[in-house]
Amino acid sequence: MNNKSALYRYIPFLDWIRSYSGDDLRGDANAGLTVGIMLIPQGMAYAVLAGLPPVYGLYASIVPLIIYALLGTSRHLAVGPVALISLLVLAGISDFAEAGTERFIQLAILTALGVGVVQLLMGLLRMGFMVNFLSHPILAGFTSAAALIIAASQIRNLLGVPLPRSNQLLEIGLALFNQIGDIHLFTTIIGIGSIVAIILIRRWKSTLPASLIVVIITILITYLFDLHNRGLTVVGDIPRGLPSFSLVGFEITDLQMLLPTILVISLISYIESVAVAKAIANKRGYRIDPNQELVALGSANLGGAFFQAYPTAGGFSRTAVNDQANARTGIASVISAGVIALTVLFLTPLFYYLPNAVLAAIIIVAVFGLFDNEEIVHLWKTDRRDLFMLMITFFATLFIGIEEGIAVGVIISLIMVIYSSTQPHSAELGQLGSSSNFRNINRYPEARIEEDVLIFRFDSSLYFANVEHFRDSLQALIEKKGATLKVIILDASAINSIDSTGIHMLKKLVKDLNEREISLYIASAIGPVRDKLKTAGIIELMGQENFFFDFINALAYHHGDFDRKNESPPYSPLQTNR
Amino acid sequence: MNNKSALYRYIPFLDWIRSYSGDDLRGDANAGLTVGIMLIPQGMAYAVLAGLPPVYGLYASIVPLIIYALLGTSRHLAVGPVALISLLVLAGISDFAEAGTERFIQLAILTALGVGVVQLLMGLLRMGFMVNFLSHPILAGFTSAAALIIAASQIRNLLGVPLPRSNQLLEIGLALFNQIGDIHLFTTIIGIGSIVAIILIRRWKSTLPASLIVVIITILITYLFDLHNRGLTVVGDIPRGLPSFSLVGFEITDLQMLLPTILVISLISYIESVAVAKAIANKRGYRIDPNQELVALGSANLGGAFFQAYPTAGGFSRTAVNDQANARTGIASVISAGVIALTVLFLTPLFYYLPNAVLAAIIIVAVFGLFDNEEIVHLWKTDRRDLFMLMITFFATLFIGIEEGIAVGVIISLIMVIYSSTQPHSAELGQLGSSSNFRNINRYPEARIEEDVLIFRFDSSLYFANVEHFRDSLQALIEKKGATLKVIILDASAINSIDSTGIHMLKKLVKDLNEREISLYIASAIGPVRDKLKTAGIIELMGQENFFFDFINALAYHHGDFDRKNESPPYSPLQTNR
Repeated sequence: MNNKSALYRYIPFLDWIRSYSGDDLRGDANAGLTVGIMLIPQGMAYAVLAGLPPVYGLYASIVPLIIYALLGTSRHLAVGPVALISLLVLAGISDFAEAGTERFIQLAILTALGVGVVQLLMGLLRMGFMVNFLSHPILAGFTSAAALIIAASQIRNLLGVPLPRSNQLLEIGLALFNQIGDIHLFTTIIGIGSIVAIILIRRWKSTLPASLIVVIITILITYLFDLHNRGLTVVGDIPRGLPSFSLVGFEITDLQMLLPTILVISLISYIESVAVAKAIANKRGYRIDPNQELVALGSANLGGAFFQAYPTAGGFSRTAVNDQANARTGIASVISAGVIALTVLFLTPLFYYLPNAVLAAIIIVAVFGLFDNEEIVHLWKTDRRDLFMLMITFFATLFIGIEEGIAVGVIISLIMVIYSSTQPHSAELGQLGSSSNFRNINRYPEARIEEDVLIFRFDSSLYFANVEHFRDSLQALIEKKGATLKVIILDASAINSIDSTGIHMLKKLVKDLNEREISLYIASAIGPVRDKLKTAGIIELMGQENFFFDFINALAYHHGDFDRKNESPPYSPLQTNR
Repeated sequence: MNNKSALYRYIPFLDWIRSYSGDDLRGDANAGLTVGIMLIPQGMAYAVLAGLPPVYGLYASIVPLIIYALLGTSRHLAVGPVALISLLVLAGISDFAEAGTERFIQLAILTALGVGVVQLLMGLLRMGFMVNFLSHPILAGFTSAAALIIAASQIRNLLGVPLPRSNQLLEIGLALFNQIGDIHLFTTIIGIGSIVAIILIRRWKSTLPASLIVVIITILITYLFDLHNRGLTVVGDIPRGLPSFSLVGFEITDLQMLLPTILVISLISYIESVAVAKAIANKRGYRIDPNQELVALGSANLGGAFFQAYPTAGGFSRTAVNDQANARTGIASVISAGVIALTVLFLTPLFYYLPNAVLAAIIIVAVFGLFDNEEIVHLWKTDRRDLFMLMITFFATLFIGIEEGIAVGVIISLIMVIYSSTQPHSAELGQLGSSSNFRNINRYPEARIEEDVLIFRFDSSLYFANVEHFRDSLQALIEKKGATLKVIILDASAINSIDSTGIHMLKKLVKDLNEREISLYIASAIGPVRDKLKTAGIIELMGQENFFFDFINALAYHHGDFDRKNESPPYSPLQTNR
């Protein structure tokens, strides 16, 4: 790679900008303005969800967007505050500081700093593969539970009831039941009305900025009817001006106590962003680089933290809007950031009369989409084990804790992977009619088997966790065959790899079978496995003549009607390392 | 299962005893006496290794043997004190009590109690599969390091130098260097001499009880030359009498602090025992039940703890001797226990003059065999990744700690399993000549490929950790083929299972390929995968006509010269759940 292409790789923006056209600018301008307008209410709402004053949602919508635009490999990903990460910020920090206080804000920005460093390091260490450790059911269980918790946490603002801040559904439900009389009428009308209005406007014309329209209307209503003096809580004073460059002060013990939160947010922010970015990239026919995405997101979080941003990620809904509004490059995000910058510079006084209930309504509508009931129905029909894992993650997230929920999900799915690989499927094969099709005799009882031959297929990599199972399954079949057995043909086509424990077992097997005067043929081994068998000396131990391209040749050899010279190309185990 | 066979299953002894013959008794008597005589010095030596007075090694050689004989499914396994477990007892308890004290003895017996409960529970929960989580390299790395640590820990007794008790090789080495002048001449002669004598006697005639002969000779020498008054430390008074039934007193906090040790010993004791038992069972043509083995070992440890036994396991060398001396059933172990019982009843005064250096010599000779240099050479040649894991476990055990070493090994090997499965092997296949052999075109450059067909083989189960890799590999090949591509044939023979994340990806793939007017055929899917594809609706989504028994049929179908009716049996996706 020359210096220039390395530069393009690490700063993809420089690559795009070379061929930037007027067409691109028109698309980017349209998308950037649309997403920017969408971000004004969403940013404030998510900041409230995270336990921060609304303006911090706007701060998090400026610098991170610009940095991601320079470094990200996705041309469409709309970075900024998102619901899930905001919830994680609230859950992770509220143990150490009260929401809304100076200390809370300080810790939220420190978390962004930590997330930035962790993601950057993961990117530089090329740990993008970590994204693969979270399965679809675990993610669905986690986001569904998070959606419920987020919605419940907004009831206090939506109905104007002084419920305690909590992540516990039961606690919220009980408190609501006790304080049902304290529900504030105007607040409830504005809150529920906003939800209905947002949904109706979207149905009517999905291109309209529904949230912003509702925000403007409710500000006007509040102002005109003087509702803020009748018990409706409003956003109030929002400081004017761009977020200034400043280093967040902290002690090392702060970082220690925030570490679990930082790690979880780093992972979830990355997974959410890459999932969204990949979906759009596949659709538009370009590719993203998972490791560079980590670098870009990490830089966005790290750089943002110096300008008072709390942790951010690529958002699902805004990215979709960005794409639909014809975004072509990261310039769209730069324009969105410009819209927010103008807002904090000049427009914040306009939001004085914005009811908190409207922000709650915006959050609740946004998280509707996170509740994945389709997946539950789908898994009920097709994969009960995955449904079980989804449910465990869901309930662990709901009732144990948000970070604990995702940890439980990951650990269970890893254990399940190992556990299921300790007892893989295997089969004795028989011939279907006179065809060259050989199938599992338990599925095809009409398949023909011979008394003196056992064709054994083992459907897994052969490694330490399942060598015992291999031995036991084969032993059971050998015993079933009884004394007539002369030849075992191992169909190795599904053995994708062999580790040293597998090699030990095979060596012992060859010796044991030799003593019992049973021949072992190995057929259909794939290249990497043939290589391993050769370097480990198994081919030597067994004899070259007992290796075959496929088990049909092996069977013919056993019947005496197979001429190796007719094999095309002539097969020799010496060719295995080709 | 009727009541009787259930009884035989849970108390295998009752099954053997029905057909017990005079021949069996002769074999068992010979083996039982031989192992019992071997156990007298070994038991005392291992107790010293564990930091206990010698007599506790004898106590651990009575009740556990009898209980295992009743409940174990191995007819040959010789349970009792073993080197590895003794080292773990010393390492785990010496943080909390000084070796040899009453408190230390109490905690050792409490550990046996805990190990018994854990193993029993694991057995009842049928967790015998846990044995599969430890790979051969991890075990080899761990036991090799443990052998070094054990040998080093015996230097103080072997040479009569007052070295500190330590598990740190460096510390022992340094102390030895500083105290080289304190080496005690008589002790060293007796110690080194004993090692040489044991090895020579074994070489000369392996059936002789080498350790016992050396014990008797050195006792006589010590007594005759009055060496115990010339600075040679001897075993001294050993209490007479059988271990009495007693409940070990403990606080719940004791159990908490011992928990990591208890868990590690439970696992290692089980793994060592099952490995030995399986090896002999395979040789003698019977089978053992891994879950019942957990129950038997757990009961042996639990029951033993009520009779002052510290944790036990099936030992490698004694089991081999038991087998060679013609043991037929657990009666052999009962006879061994009888030998030990007679010893503690009547013979303990004879061991007063036994030099500690001789016990050290016995331990050192026993652990020679644990150092697995052959495995290191083997892995260097065949599997560098497994060698790497062996080395990490070895050095972690040596320099971080004994329990930490095994934990590091297990965690690394599990992570490696997942990591390697995130990037499985895949290949584009081409035809070799006009044969029906299709192989990886990167290994067989002469393999013929067609411009409009891509035959793609993916060598792994398709699940959450590798769906991205599947998508990326396939996408890269599609791009390489370019616009001429019309058909993708997925050779699913090596796809051993599919989870719900894999199903989601396949559905999306089918839709994406449809949009690009590329057909997807799936061939050679194994039964469980066909079932999954059917219930998940993928067969419906793709069309039944795009499923084939193998990719040769699929290719013929694409060429227009394939008649489904000639397929034998006529293939229909509706048959998949047969």
